[in-house]
Amino acid sequence: MKPQRQWIPTPHTRFRFEDTFWKPRVETNRTVTLPAEYEQCRKTGRLDAFKLEWKQGDPNPPHIFWDSDVAKWIEAAAYSLATHPDPELEALCDRTIDWIARAQQPDGYLNVHFTVVEPEKRWTNLRDWHELYCAGHLIEAAVAYAQATGKRRLLEVLGRYADHIARVFGAGPGQKRGYPGHPELELALVKLYRATNERKYLDLAKFFVDERGRQPHYYDLEARARGEDPAGHWTGGYDYYQAHLPLREQKTAEGHAVRALYLFSGAADVALETGDEGLWKALLRLWKNIVRRRMYVTGGVGSARHGERFTFDYDLPNETAYAETCANIALVFFAHRLLQADLNAEYADVLERALYNGVLSGVSKDGRHFFYENYLAACPPFERFARMNPVVRQEWFGCACCPPNVARLLASLGLYFSSQSAAGLAIHLYAGGRLETTVGEVPVALDFQTDYPWDGTVRLEVSPAKTVRFALALRIPGWCRAAKLKLNGTALPLAKLVANGYAHLERDWAPGDRVELELPMPVERIEAHPGVREDCGRVALQRGPLVYCIEEADCGRNLADLVLPAKAKLTAKWEPKLLGGVVSIAGTAKRREEKQWGETLYRPAGRSTFRPTRLKAIPYALWANRKPGEMRVWVRAE
Amino acid sequence: MKPQRQWIPTPHTRFRFEDTFWKPRVETNRTVTLPAEYEQCRKTGRLDAFKLEWKQGDPNPPHIFWDSDVAKWIEAAAYSLATHPDPELEALCDRTIDWIARAQQPDGYLNVHFTVVEPEKRWTNLRDWHELYCAGHLIEAAVAYAQATGKRRLLEVLGRYADHIARVFGAGPGQKRGYPGHPELELALVKLYRATNERKYLDLAKFFVDERGRQPHYYDLEARARGEDPAGHWTGGYDYYQAHLPLREQKTAEGHAVRALYLFSGAADVALETGDEGLWKALLRLWKNIVRRRMYVTGGVGSARHGERFTFDYDLPNETAYAETCANIALVFFAHRLLQADLNAEYADVLERALYNGVLSGVSKDGRHFFYENYLAACPPFERFARMNPVVRQEWFGCACCPPNVARLLASLGLYFSSQSAAGLAIHLYAGGRLETTVGEVPVALDFQTDYPWDGTVRLEVSPAKTVRFALALRIPGWCRAAKLKLNGTALPLAKLVANGYAHLERDWAPGDRVELELPMPVERIEAHPGVREDCGRVALQRGPLVYCIEEADCGRNLADLVLPAKAKLTAKWEPKLLGGVVSIAGTAKRREEKQWGETLYRPAGRSTFRPTRLKAIPYALWANRKPGEMRVWVRAE
Repeated sequence: MKPQRQWIPTPHTRFRFEDTFWKPRVETNRTVTLPAEYEQCRKTGRLDAFKLEWKQGDPNPPHIFWDSDVAKWIEAAAYSLATHPDPELEALCDRTIDWIARAQQPDGYLNVHFTVVEPEKRWTNLRDWHELYCAGHLIEAAVAYAQATGKRRLLEVLGRYADHIARVFGAGPGQKRGYPGHPELELALVKLYRATNERKYLDLAKFFVDERGRQPHYYDLEARARGEDPAGHWTGGYDYYQAHLPLREQKTAEGHAVRALYLFSGAADVALETGDEGLWKALLRLWKNIVRRRMYVTGGVGSARHGERFTFDYDLPNETAYAETCANIALVFFAHRLLQADLNAEYADVLERALYNGVLSGVSKDGRHFFYENYLAACPPFERFARMNPVVRQEWFGCACCPPNVARLLASLGLYFSSQSAAGLAIHLYAGGRLETTVGEVPVALDFQTDYPWDGTVRLEVSPAKTVRFALALRIPGWCRAAKLKLNGTALPLAKLVANGYAHLERDWAPGDRVELELPMPVERIEAHPGVREDCGRVALQRGPLVYCIEEADCGRNLADLVLPAKAKLTAKWEPKLLGGVVSIAGTAKRREEKQWGETLYRPAGRSTFRPTRLKAIPYALWANRKPGEMRVWVRAE
Repeated sequence: MKPQRQWIPTPHTRFRFEDTFWKPRVETNRTVTLPAEYEQCRKTGRLDAFKLEWKQGDPNPPHIFWDSDVAKWIEAAAYSLATHPDPELEALCDRTIDWIARAQQPDGYLNVHFTVVEPEKRWTNLRDWHELYCAGHLIEAAVAYAQATGKRRLLEVLGRYADHIARVFGAGPGQKRGYPGHPELELALVKLYRATNERKYLDLAKFFVDERGRQPHYYDLEARARGEDPAGHWTGGYDYYQAHLPLREQKTAEGHAVRALYLFSGAADVALETGDEGLWKALLRLWKNIVRRRMYVTGGVGSARHGERFTFDYDLPNETAYAETCANIALVFFAHRLLQADLNAEYADVLERALYNGVLSGVSKDGRHFFYENYLAACPPFERFARMNPVVRQEWFGCACCPPNVARLLASLGLYFSSQSAAGLAIHLYAGGRLETTVGEVPVALDFQTDYPWDGTVRLEVSPAKTVRFALALRIPGWCRAAKLKLNGTALPLAKLVANGYAHLERDWAPGDRVELELPMPVERIEAHPGVREDCGRVALQRGPLVYCIEEADCGRNLADLVLPAKAKLTAKWEPKLLGGVVSIAGTAKRREEKQWGETLYRPAGRSTFRPTRLKAIPYALWANRKPGEMRVWVRAE
């Protein structure tokens, strides 16, 4: 099947959140996170770096990936400006863009590190350095800023840079047949193509995708040109860069998870634009490998700290989970691409799983602190001895990719909620709020009344400017096992309407039409495939799209010894004062009586008595918003 | 209580193994391991290094700890020569000793690296470099070789080196108040003291022990003298070196486990020789912290790979267990010291636990392959991604401390089986064989008939040259809950005879007296303290002193999903053809039916059906002697 980009995401500007779950987070992102990240970029020297004033011998040389942090911040600010005009924020952006524009070299090249620190090394190590990665993020920022403000200066600058890159790289004589060691540029070039309608950018993206992993291997040639042994690099293989094989031949998701998922997203964009069936087939195979064998229940991906990478099927350790925030965001991106070709709830289910759990966990409720790793279990002293980051979100990182990535995602959140095709309008995620779009030529508003994800009742009023025929496709989440649907008060035969997890209502929609979707949300115990060795004998609690965890703050220490009996009743309860308002899950578990042990470390089994203990679980995404302590997603079960 | 060295270990030469468990291992050690390790030392340049021919610019510079590898090999060879004279082996030793002697500098200094590679750095970084550590191992070798062969050349060389060290280090004017960054020399100096009766060596050992961790901190002063910031070292604190506090003030076992246990062993030797009550009290506190909160069920210690160190109470992860072979051996050494003051089976229980499990696992049955880490669970691809050593024993290591450490332990194994005091003779461990010693002036032989550890019946014939009165103290192992004792066919009231885990039989022993000890060995399920988070809900199988494990070779893959029901009957069975003859443990466990899962990764709990599955366990020490695969000590239990 040739992939076609049938379902175009409705721009985020069309959806206005009016709910208690996302609206405050998006607001905090705008009012706290964006200024805080700007300040971090400023005080760490990332902004001033574009002034190109750094000289040999000065402290704090601009790092090879600094440009990308600023770019992601501009992109986030642009999305925010598109929904919330803010002259001060726009002025900050304009000033920053001015510096960026002035940093561009006469030939179009634009990278701070390789202009002031190591100019002689330009384009000499695509494998390990981040020139093309930074270019990609700058392009994304430029496209977003032009769309948000109509100001095209940054877009023009990046167009010139992209043209420069297109002169340097390619299959022509005298060109380098290289490709990004850290993919990102591929998807950015497709955005640039869509923004400018210049086919050359799509062609360049396709070149990078196709060239990857070919023999003779560019990274070998490039290493030898540097006088290095290609075999001598730290990653031990090109799978780290997804360059061990041509992408079309890759059968499992390997290597650095952010690299992998940015690549797959960009390749999906290329395939959608070019109708490349072989490439699409490879991407679906990789998708399946990830979501069916290599993804945490939180939607986290890339389980190993060393190499921030995918490892092997079913290897999903909890305490040492890496599941980098950026990788989880990139999984959202990949799912979002697949959903453009094929309205299949499998993609939206994963997108939702990652978004509500492993992505949202990346930022604190206060909007000022971030996780790089998203562990699924924590025992605070352990992290220190295992050389992992502490179980407390940090204000910033030396390698600061995650904070602005969260910011740009939240600033553009509405983008992921719906999409449109010639046939109609698809709703992927549910939140209270208003979607305003047009179907054909007819303005249509959809008002959503729901407490999702806390409650599964979604009331939807469809208000076209005049009666208009279209198919409304409503996602029936994979976690929901007893959905019901009413149209204007009349129950519909849902099973007959559902295809691939979406209920399709094709009709003449008239002002005042009402749809009511019931998505019952019982508390569920989830178990993992027997191959997931750390989860054997354990369950995760899930309610609706939210995966839950237990924390020391509620359940005391030694969470590993807490056992949830199969028959224990679990009750969901709205707690307005807990963490700003959450539905918690409570029940009675049991644990061994520790007192009986005294100073004994090992003893014959069977002597222990158990005592009842309160189990209270909160949404995983909200953990570590109280005082530091133990946490656990997978709870022992009987 | 002032510590006194009441119970002197009977030399290993007095016990002749005639059993099926240890005798073949000791023989393999002598005939395979010793030659193989000599060859490794030779081909890696460790032997030739003593010729001091290395010049700047040459490849393969002698490493700072190479001297110690050769020293431990000589020590092992000496123990072997003492029981099995072997002119060829002795000639190899003599030739090596000749090189070592010639490498000694005119002032007595003796260290290859700091003679040929960095002579200007002699004694400038006690914290990180291994000069004093190497000196300790050379002294141990010298003492052992003199005792085995009567040849005193190496002892004289090392006496001169010790005298040099005593001139450089001390509290006197112009002396350095430093101490080993890697303890070892302390216990070696006490050996040298005992071998030479020169009090100055004991005094120097005591100086090193007392000086450790004092302020102003020697490692601070020394770092500043090198022009370095003392705070800038990689370990992040002096606890790594057990130098964060004076030893007497240390309450928990911290830092690098081998360093810690060599230090505690050496300090115990000092305390035993000097009657130092405060030091002894501190050591007992550290002992308790280790064996009651920080020791694997295998007797392994030092759970963290990073820093090869102790971490925090109850932190005993299985797949990432470090439990270095050397650390487990050093725990045997420490226990053996404590046992000299106090005939308390707690010490011998730990000694036995480590020896039969976490130490013996360090060497393959073929005697040619070694583990550095002793994991308690393994899933082969995991080690690669976690940057751990593979789950296959290696022939050698760049840092090769473990192989010759195992060799010297096995070559002197008899040393740990019994000890003697003015009051009598104590038997700590049981094996078929013959102990020949003297009590007072009277030669006494004890013949042990037993299949220990496969069977718990121990028949002992006491054969004094003439009737002689002494107390025979027989250890009743802590794992045994129903021991019985007969003397000349008559049952004795064991409870009345036992104090601190030893049954004391004081009487006139006459030729032909027979003792029969019954130590029933049912298969036991062991559980760990609720604080050991990885072992919650799991049991280890133990029979007698042997901890068991399950392996993929017997039980298939996904061992984590195998569950042992509480009521499942477990049967021990002698299998002469398995791994050279072992008692295996078999029973019926269950595991989830994997087929039902297909490509599902997560699903609601409660749908799984279980299928019966064979559980077969083998002694942990013998794992990884078949083809590589999964392994697990702690098995899920219901």
